[in-house]
Amino acid sequence: MKTKVSFVLFLSFFLAASALAAEPTAQSVNDSVNMIWVAIGTLLVFFMHAGFAMIESGFTRAKNTLNILMKNFLTVSIGSILYFFAGYALMFGDSAGGFIGTSGFALAGDQDVGFFVFQAVFAATCATIISGAVAERMKLGSYMILTLFITGLIYPVVGHWTWGEGWLYDLGFVDFAGSAIVHTTGAAGAVAAVIFLGPRIGKYANGKVNAIPGHSIPLGALGVFILWFGWFGFNGGSTLAADPAAVPHVITTTLLAASGGVVSSALFTYFRYGRIDPSLTLNGALGGLVGITAGADGVSFTGAILIGCIAGVILVVGVQFIDQVLKLDDPVGAIAVHGVCGVWGTLAVGLFNTSSGLFYGGGAAQLGIQAVGILAIAAWTLAATSAVTAVMKAFTPIRVSKEEEISGLDYAEHGSSAYEYKESYIEQGDVDVSSAFGTDLVSRLNNLKPGPSSKTEQV
Amino acid sequence: MKTKVSFVLFLSFFLAASALAAEPTAQSVNDSVNMIWVAIGTLLVFFMHAGFAMIESGFTRAKNTLNILMKNFLTVSIGSILYFFAGYALMFGDSAGGFIGTSGFALAGDQDVGFFVFQAVFAATCATIISGAVAERMKLGSYMILTLFITGLIYPVVGHWTWGEGWLYDLGFVDFAGSAIVHTTGAAGAVAAVIFLGPRIGKYANGKVNAIPGHSIPLGALGVFILWFGWFGFNGGSTLAADPAAVPHVITTTLLAASGGVVSSALFTYFRYGRIDPSLTLNGALGGLVGITAGADGVSFTGAILIGCIAGVILVVGVQFIDQVLKLDDPVGAIAVHGVCGVWGTLAVGLFNTSSGLFYGGGAAQLGIQAVGILAIAAWTLAATSAVTAVMKAFTPIRVSKEEEISGLDYAEHGSSAYEYKESYIEQGDVDVSSAFGTDLVSRLNNLKPGPSSKTEQV
Amino acid sequence: MKTKVSFVLFLSFFLAASALAAEPTAQSVNDSVNMIWVAIGTLLVFFMHAGFAMIESGFTRAKNTLNILMKNFLTVSIGSILYFFAGYALMFGDSAGGFIGTSGFALAGDQDVGFFVFQAVFAATCATIISGAVAERMKLGSYMILTLFITGLIYPVVGHWTWGEGWLYDLGFVDFAGSAIVHTTGAAGAVAAVIFLGPRIGKYANGKVNAIPGHSIPLGALGVFILWFGWFGFNGGSTLAADPAAVPHVITTTLLAASGGVVSSALFTYFRYGRIDPSLTLNGALGGLVGITAGADGVSFTGAILIGCIAGVILVVGVQFIDQVLKLDDPVGAIAVHGVCGVWGTLAVGLFNTSSGLFYGGGAAQLGIQAVGILAIAAWTLAATSAVTAVMKAFTPIRVSKEEEISGLDYAEHGSSAYEYKESYIEQGDVDVSSAFGTDLVSRLNNLKPGPSSKTEQV
Repeated sequence: MKTKVSFVLFLSFFLAASALAAEPTAQSVNDSVNMIWVAIGTLLVFFMHAGFAMIESGFTRAKNTLNILMKNFLTVSIGSILYFFAGYALMFGDSAGGFIGTSGFALAGDQDVGFFVFQAVFAATCATIISGAVAERMKLGSYMILTLFITGLIYPVVGHWTWGEGWLYDLGFVDFAGSAIVHTTGAAGAVAAVIFLGPRIGKYANGKVNAIPGHSIPLGALGVFILWFGWFGFNGGSTLAADPAAVPHVITTTLLAASGGVVSSALFTYFRYGRIDPSLTLNGALGGLVGITAGADGVSFTGAILIGCIAGVILVVGVQFIDQVLKLDDPVGAIAVHGVCGVWGTLAVGLFNTSSGLFYGGGAAQLGIQAVGILAIAAWTLAATSAVTAVMKAFTPIRVSKEEEISGLDYAEHGSSAYEYKESYIEQGDVDVSSAFGTDLVSRLNNLKPGPSSKTEQV
Repeated sequence: MKTKVSFVLFLSFFLAASALAAEPTAQSVNDSVNMIWVAIGTLLVFFMHAGFAMIESGFTRAKNTLNILMKNFLTVSIGSILYFFAGYALMFGDSAGGFIGTSGFALAGDQDVGFFVFQAVFAATCATIISGAVAERMKLGSYMILTLFITGLIYPVVGHWTWGEGWLYDLGFVDFAGSAIVHTTGAAGAVAAVIFLGPRIGKYANGKVNAIPGHSIPLGALGVFILWFGWFGFNGGSTLAADPAAVPHVITTTLLAASGGVVSSALFTYFRYGRIDPSLTLNGALGGLVGITAGADGVSFTGAILIGCIAGVILVVGVQFIDQVLKLDDPVGAIAVHGVCGVWGTLAVGLFNTSSGLFYGGGAAQLGIQAVGILAIAAWTLAATSAVTAVMKAFTPIRVSKEEEISGLDYAEHGSSAYEYKESYIEQGDVDVSSAFGTDLVSRLNNLKPGPSSKTEQV
Repeated sequence: MKTKVSFVLFLSFFLAASALAAEPTAQSVNDSVNMIWVAIGTLLVFFMHAGFAMIESGFTRAKNTLNILMKNFLTVSIGSILYFFAGYALMFGDSAGGFIGTSGFALAGDQDVGFFVFQAVFAATCATIISGAVAERMKLGSYMILTLFITGLIYPVVGHWTWGEGWLYDLGFVDFAGSAIVHTTGAAGAVAAVIFLGPRIGKYANGKVNAIPGHSIPLGALGVFILWFGWFGFNGGSTLAADPAAVPHVITTTLLAASGGVVSSALFTYFRYGRIDPSLTLNGALGGLVGITAGADGVSFTGAILIGCIAGVILVVGVQFIDQVLKLDDPVGAIAVHGVCGVWGTLAVGLFNTSSGLFYGGGAAQLGIQAVGILAIAAWTLAATSAVTAVMKAFTPIRVSKEEEISGLDYAEHGSSAYEYKESYIEQGDVDVSSAFGTDLVSRLNNLKPGPSSKTEQV
């Protein structure tokens, strides 16, 4: 009898726990669901690069559009490949004292591919933040070298300290989806690069702070919507599992905080300047999103609205302070969006986290840890980016020439133009672009380099 | 022995039903899958706002672009926050006689967060339909007040009657994803607002109906594709579960009906006007989508194609009737798309539903109920929106001044411009926008309000 | 006692294996997860049509924008409906000798709806490839007839040979997501159509190969990002199941190969022409994506990077060869992207597949089979498309008149314009478009056909 009962016991286990090889089990299906959710997050974060590209090209001048687009495409491409070969290993490999990872290069060993590719698109996001701040003047080649260091070393080190379970993790630092790890890192890199680059020609002239208008706000607005859409994957996917208790919560806090950022920046500009400022309101959405990123899983819905509303206000103040007091020329407001609001979001965890936050009876400990994390991340990124940029600058100009900047980087670096221009649409009369613009693929190349192609024409 | 068997019995239950806390079960994984699917629906419906923004800015004039973009961003933001605090409770709370919900404000009580956030992005969709119809002349502030009422009261009441299991639900009214509940409501609100607003300057002048061209059909076309893409989440997510018997069916009917709308509106304009009209064909896609929304789960594939084809034709006729006979000036055709095709789609359930439809032997009962629902929803929305608009209008103009309308709402309401203009691209020579356009964030603000910032320049 | 144990046994089975009808089981949830993943793939592939529309309109001239947008919308619409009625049956129905399917018209019988709709959006993708190559000169009507044949016959036949388990499948031909089946088929159709159409006016004039610039590279770049985003569904969804061993692998190879294509085409143009060419680099991303499509599931990550890098280089060479040596006028580079890189990707399976590839000890057998597949698919498509095009041409011109081409297809075929033009933005001074452009829906129709509407104006 005992045998029979044991058999039943065995059968129960067998059926419930894993069953026949080909048959799905609750565990195997659960793995599938979690994988699917992280995969969706990966795709959405990838798509954020389209958002960055639209924002950065829309918020800058038409003559620099091709250049900024190339920076965006090359960033995600170089970033992904480099993160595969090195970045992931430095971030999540076996730790050397909590400071850097040392194993898993080129995904050697038994790695979770889905986790890797999710992290890869994150890494590229961090790097692309810089492209907006250095737009309209940094050489494409110098920018690409900087991107190599950001995605291959600087960001992975920050990531190892935290998500890689390094020293900041051990300290209790909390940054759910990367207000500090991704956004403050990107912004700190932008600050360093902008300091070494200097402002665009005409930005700070004759003792004035001059406006340099972007050329297509609808493209920029589309970019903001794409980023917001992708951010649901950025934050939502960071749960790393299809957890019904976590994912809808994160989606809701993300929606509400971004909404708060829009409303507060619109109202703040209205009361301060008498008009709702469209560019600042669009950036207010992004400010709210950056702000909620660190605490999307751990704050209440009302907390999320407050975090977003505060982010929308400090975004406006931050843009003004950076532009007029610090005189850092950041064409798209990236430093304020990702830096100021990234710091705010990281600290907000110490205030609004429903288990450890100051406002919820958790004392100031978490807030202190968050501040330490911010300082460490900003210091490392500023120092490392400055070092890379300074060394580059010592060997070669990292900035295009004055003539190239005036004629536009599209013409200077690509011999081409983003639009089908007519005379009246061309800004600089002294540059002949009439024969150089366009997209018809090969034939235009003839304009770039004579040679075999000119013979081909006679064929 | 009995003890042992009981133990096995207990164990079986234990393993199969919920098991150890951390172990997934079929039920827990099923919850995850359903949650994931609704989450994806939420994201896609959110992204529809990008589609609306692109359609509405592309189909109107360049001088009003910033304004329409702000309306779109503020609608989804205010809508989400307000729906959290009040709308959801009024829609899904404990019913007061089948007319309005009364509990769950700010998600108080035990609410399904995933269901809430899915409904929140729906609510904002309803409101944003109006922004297209009132474009190019309604004050941003007045529009925002109207949005407060739409998302905070008018739409939630309609929703309570139906999805909130109120009196229309009890009557047997069927509207799967909202042809009536979302789209007809939005369109009825648009009708009321347009009546109170009046047409744009020059629209009906000298006894003629004049064309007022939009400024970028590619943006509009992109918007239509984004809406179509998002609509798979709008309809697909409305299954509220990852049901293999329902979701692929809904996706297929949605694809086929939209396709039918494109083909029929293209052919209808070709035979009627000698040319395929691009704008009407783009709206034909939307007409097909609105048309299938009520019955996406309950009609056959051939039925879906027919519903879409008919929607594409009545869209064209509807646009003409509204514009030329009713003389309602609707710059983007929103009333025809969401109203005419919304009514059609709701009635089509009574004809094509494979279990209750007239064409499938179900008699005319369902059709009658559908008509009652449409009448009730339209009457309530028209009355409530008219009341709100009339009260607003009694206190303050809801429309910009003639000078502001001619110079463009971007300059009038935002002191700015959406594009990097050159002289030839500016429409109104009597307005100086040369110093006011652009996006460089803070420095432009100097142009708006002198004060601390002018001092800052000397720093 | 035996009875009791049997009861326990029964209960265990009952609980663990399928239980009460409404209760989810591991199997039912697994079905849901797989369905969800294929549904997501379907939506993403659908969204690729937005990408094609943006690429094709951005990379051509402004005067042909409405026409190309209409081609894109009508392709996906006609394609979906026709594939429902016929294409799917010809592709996946009961096989007539391995050459064509013969059952399942209008989804008759017990069909997997989710699989159908995934395949439907694929079919439309194949057809839309051609629209870019024939842009700016082919009559919309003729193009639509060609689309009928591509989605209703030519592509389904290719699909039956392979995914429909026809003769190429039996031979061992491997094409995971369609480098050959979708992309080479589309490109071969494009070659045939372009040969019959001839080049655009001015393209090959005075013994020169002239550049004909596109009008908006930002739209084109957005299109590339959308395609890349959608391609994760194109390749990822082709696993047809939410398999944690397959999906993340496919997403990663797709990301890395596209990244490789971007980097290699950028570097290759830099070293060859002294400048990073933006248009070729954007097409390099697509080349990498087409290249990895056949082997996304079966090559290593390093293999994927190599496949993408090689694709990026042969894309550049291919564009030049097609444009200057073959003198096939392909405005957007579709033949090189989908044809040259499609062939490369298909052959690359024979080299890089980790179980059957030449570089992994699999010998040359797979490579030979891949070559046979390519030849068969290209020969059939070229022959069939040529036959269709030749017959069309025998009855009616398939190309717009010279005057229409110069004035632009938007004016010629739609009596309208995609943008709010000012004089300086209009290219052809001899065409009066001043009264014909715009989007305000009905009133513009008055310009097309006088009649009832002119009476309406007096109402």
